[in-house]
Amino acid sequence: MKKTTLLYEGKAKKVFKTDDEEKLIVSYKDDATAFNGVKKGSIEEKGSVNNRVSNYLMGLLEKEGIPTHLIEELNERETVVRKVQIVPLEVIVRNIAAGSLSKRLGLEEGTKMASTVLEYCYKNDDLGDPMINDYHIYAMSLATEEELKTIADMSLKINTTLTTYFASINIELVDFKLEFGRTSDGHIILADEISPDTCRFWDKNTGEKLDKDRFRRDLGKVEDAYQEILKRTLGK
Amino acid sequence: MKKTTLLYEGKAKKVFKTDDEEKLIVSYKDDATAFNGVKKGSIEEKGSVNNRVSNYLMGLLEKEGIPTHLIEELNERETVVRKVQIVPLEVIVRNIAAGSLSKRLGLEEGTKMASTVLEYCYKNDDLGDPMINDYHIYAMSLATEEELKTIADMSLKINTTLTTYFASINIELVDFKLEFGRTSDGHIILADEISPDTCRFWDKNTGEKLDKDRFRRDLGKVEDAYQEILKRTLGK
Repeated sequence: MKKTTLLYEGKAKKVFKTDDEEKLIVSYKDDATAFNGVKKGSIEEKGSVNNRVSNYLMGLLEKEGIPTHLIEELNERETVVRKVQIVPLEVIVRNIAAGSLSKRLGLEEGTKMASTVLEYCYKNDDLGDPMINDYHIYAMSLATEEELKTIADMSLKINTTLTTYFASINIELVDFKLEFGRTSDGHIILADEISPDTCRFWDKNTGEKLDKDRFRRDLGKVEDAYQEILKRTLGK
Repeated sequence: MKKTTLLYEGKAKKVFKTDDEEKLIVSYKDDATAFNGVKKGSIEEKGSVNNRVSNYLMGLLEKEGIPTHLIEELNERETVVRKVQIVPLEVIVRNIAAGSLSKRLGLEEGTKMASTVLEYCYKNDDLGDPMINDYHIYAMSLATEEELKTIADMSLKINTTLTTYFASINIELVDFKLEFGRTSDGHIILADEISPDTCRFWDKNTGEKLDKDRFRRDLGKVEDAYQEILKRTLGK
């Protein structure tokens, strides 16, 4: 498997074409951004942590019957994934109120939601990834009704699996962001990453934040938090 | 039917208790506000127009089997309505992109939506009536799943009826806001008003705006627009 041309460089990852039309190589960067790119920085070894943690979690999900884009971890920062057409939605799964939800709905951070909340944001940097609902998704043809049902069902199943898993390593899974892709034969699979960049992780005992909020909110010990997640998940 | 105490004074209406526990009297004001109360003014005869137009449209909807709070028009500005517990949602029905939807989703004003869009906003002035989805509604216990299904079905049926009616008087029904209430015996009925304050009406031939956008956007001829809607609906 060889990287050929750079297909896309995002805020936290580079994606390369390979000599196999159906496969891509993702290379995780240490660059960190927040607030739609307004805040910029770098978190040492973030790329390596996110790559390994994400692959580990996608492996767990595959065992539970959730199809993902994961094919093979190449090295600390790079992974071969299945090429998909990304559905232009960020799916946010929320168990506990935090971040934008707390602000918008006036719910104190830490409030347990009475039922799991899914939110959809339209992936569009120019518009600031606005929150949309199922009617907008259909009207803008971002996904079909069948696709969105699959995405919602998978998101809730992923939540159940991950919440249970993280509880076993003493972490509260507060919320997380997912992205999905369409394979060339038209199936929906989980894509992107699941990592301290895309999840809120709170230590169950101390409430300490072990995720990108340490960077967003200048809480310090950013690298330590990422390493702690690596240690608790992969035991490294 | 006698007004007793003032129950509530909103931006555009006063609501009075009556000597009948199950009935209220709504009194429409000429006061106009926009952008969550930031812009304030007055539109001559608005109260009278909105009261009569809203009652006329609710009458049309009743004939189509939509239950509404309308009981009896008392005079130009006042109407007896059924007392309900308001569901704290603004339901926005959109046929054509305009206003906040255009801005948020980058759709040019006037773009026909491929399918009708429903949006739900949480009625909360302090939070600026934030947009929410069905998951938020359940998690915050704002409505039950059965109630929300009734609300969505009724909103789409109201849209079909009103769009057809307004086409017959040469008006494009661009979008509108609805509110619903629970009766004392637990049914969902249409409440609030349907008027140039709560709808976007565009003349089908000229595209001229015949609604509160003339006030919001300082387009002039605000009173004329309200009178034009009164004339086309009630022939007055």
